[in-house]
Amino acid sequence: MAVYTDVTAEDLSAHLSRYDIGELLSFKGIAEGVENSNFLLHATAGTFILTLYEKRVDPADLPFFVGLMEHLAARGLTCPQPVKMRSGETLGELAGRPAAIVTFLEGMWIRRPQVHHCAAVGKALAELHLAGEGFAIRRPNALSVPGWRPLYERARDRADTVANGLAATIAGELDHCERNWPKNLPAGVIHADLFNDNVFFLQNRLSGLIDFYFACNDILAYDLAICLNAWCFSPDYEFDFAKGSAMIAAYQAVRLLSHAEKAALPLLARGSALRFLLTRLVDWLNVPPGAVVTPKDPLEYLKKLRFHQKVGSPTEYGLA
Amino acid sequence: MAVYTDVTAEDLSAHLSRYDIGELLSFKGIAEGVENSNFLLHATAGTFILTLYEKRVDPADLPFFVGLMEHLAARGLTCPQPVKMRSGETLGELAGRPAAIVTFLEGMWIRRPQVHHCAAVGKALAELHLAGEGFAIRRPNALSVPGWRPLYERARDRADTVANGLAATIAGELDHCERNWPKNLPAGVIHADLFNDNVFFLQNRLSGLIDFYFACNDILAYDLAICLNAWCFSPDYEFDFAKGSAMIAAYQAVRLLSHAEKAALPLLARGSALRFLLTRLVDWLNVPPGAVVTPKDPLEYLKKLRFHQKVGSPTEYGLA
Repeated sequence: MAVYTDVTAEDLSAHLSRYDIGELLSFKGIAEGVENSNFLLHATAGTFILTLYEKRVDPADLPFFVGLMEHLAARGLTCPQPVKMRSGETLGELAGRPAAIVTFLEGMWIRRPQVHHCAAVGKALAELHLAGEGFAIRRPNALSVPGWRPLYERARDRADTVANGLAATIAGELDHCERNWPKNLPAGVIHADLFNDNVFFLQNRLSGLIDFYFACNDILAYDLAICLNAWCFSPDYEFDFAKGSAMIAAYQAVRLLSHAEKAALPLLARGSALRFLLTRLVDWLNVPPGAVVTPKDPLEYLKKLRFHQKVGSPTEYGLA
Repeated sequence: MAVYTDVTAEDLSAHLSRYDIGELLSFKGIAEGVENSNFLLHATAGTFILTLYEKRVDPADLPFFVGLMEHLAARGLTCPQPVKMRSGETLGELAGRPAAIVTFLEGMWIRRPQVHHCAAVGKALAELHLAGEGFAIRRPNALSVPGWRPLYERARDRADTVANGLAATIAGELDHCERNWPKNLPAGVIHADLFNDNVFFLQNRLSGLIDFYFACNDILAYDLAICLNAWCFSPDYEFDFAKGSAMIAAYQAVRLLSHAEKAALPLLARGSALRFLLTRLVDWLNVPPGAVVTPKDPLEYLKKLRFHQKVGSPTEYGLA
C-alpha cells in the first residue's frame, strides 16, 4: 500500500493545467507500488496514473525511468506512456516531489499463471529487449553481482536465524557467482523485476508491462533468468518444465539466444535466485517496527537456488 | 489507507459474473475509507467501487447501509448506487467478506471549503433528510447522547494528559447534554458524518455524497449541527459566520427548520462537538503501536465546543 504523500484536489487541478488532458474528474490514492505514491486519475481526456517519487528513489534516475517508458512506448511496447506537459517536459513537481503522469493500462495481474501466461511473458520480454535498443541513457544495475556481497554482509550475522546454514549457503553461492559470472553476453535495457504483479492480462492476452523502477542496463539473458524464477515454479517451488520451455520458446521466437547465452542460463538463474534471496533476506531481517507490509519469504528463493544448483544442462529449463 | 483484504483478479472476475456490468478491465485497491477495503473497478459497463466489509462493521447493519444508498439514489440524491446482482441482491460475498458494488461518483473533496461549498452542503443535507423519508429499516445512533458516557469513561483517566482540565470540561458538558438534550425534535435518517472528505465537488458544483457508514436515525437538526462543526470554522477554529449562515439558509431553502429546531441548535452543536471530541480523544489515547494512520486532533473539537458554550442565541450561527 503506497500513498506516502497527501495531494489536494486544489493542488492537483492546478498541476493538471500544465497538461492537455482536460479537467480533473476524480483521483484516488492506490495501493500499488512500494517506493512511490500512486494515484489513479480520471480526467476528461481519459484515465491516467500520477506518480510522486518518494525519497527512496534517486532523482538522478528519473530521466532514465521516464525516458525509458517513453522510448519503449514509442516503439510499440504496451507500457505506461509518460504524458508530456505543454512545455514538452514529462517530469514535473507536485507536493514537493518529482511527479510524472503516465497513461493508464487496463488489465490485471495473474495470481496463478498458466503455461500460456508464461509464454506471453517470454514474448513480451524479448520485445522489451529489442525495443530497448537505442535508448540513450544508461543506468548500471545496482543489484548485479557487485551489489550482492554488501547485502550478504548486512544479513550474514543473522541469516542462520532464518534457516540453518543459510549464511554458508549464500557465501558459497556468492563466491561461485563472483568467480564465474559471464562477461561478454549481449547486454541492453532489462526490466529486472518482471514479476506477476508487473504484467497485466486482459482476457488471457498480455495487455501491458508496468513498473520500470528496477530497469537498468545488464545482461539480457539475466532478465530471462529472473522471469524463469518468477513465473516458472509451482506453488511448492518445483520448477515447471512446461512453463519454462513455453517461456523460452516464446522469447526465442522474437529474439534468438546465442550459444553462449544458452550455456550461461543455469548460472544466470542461480545468480538471479541469489539476488532475490539476498534482498528478501535483508528486508526480512529489517522489518521496521509496526510495518504493515509483510516482507516476502526469502526461503522461496533458497529453494529455487537449490534447484538451479543441481541443473546440469540448460535443456533442463526447456531450451530446445 | 484501507485495503485489508487481498482480492485476486481470478476471484473478482468470477464474482462479477453474477452482475450485468460486463467484463473486468482493471481494479485497484484505493486508499479510501478506514473501516472497509475499497477497490476501484473498471468494467466494460463503466467504473464502480467494490467494498469488502471488514470486521469493524456489524453485518447486521449492512442491509441498512446498502438499502439506504439504494433508497436515496432512487429518490434522486447523488450518492453511490448499489448495483444489483442478476439475482436481485445487492449484498454478496467475496474473499470471505460481505461485499457490495456501487456506482462510482466522479468528483473530489475540497480541502479548503469556501462559503459556496458550505451552501451546497446545506442544500444537499436537507435533500438527504427529505429523501430519507419512508426508508423502512431503522438504525439507532450508537454515537448519540447515551453512547457518550462510555466513551468518556474510557478516556477519563488519561484525558488531562491531552489538555489540562479536559476530563472536567467533558464531565460538565456531558452532564449538561444528558440533562437538556431535546426529546421531540423532527427525526429521520441522518448522515452523521458529512465531513469534507465525504462530499464531492466537480467544477464547484456538488457532485455527490459518499460514506453512509455512520448513517442512522436521529434528530435531523443534529446532522446540521455536525455540518456546522465540520465545515463552518476557520483553519484556526473560529466560527465563520458567512459559512454558517450560507449553510443554514441553503438548508432552509429545501427544508424549513421549526422554531424548536432553531432554538435547540446551540445545544445540538455542543453535543456534536462533544461527540467528535470524545471519539477523537479515545482514538488519540489508543493509537495501536506502529499505526500508520495519524489520529485526528481531539483539541480541534474542544475549541469548537468552547465556542458553542458561549453562544447565547441561534442567530449567532447565522440563522435569519
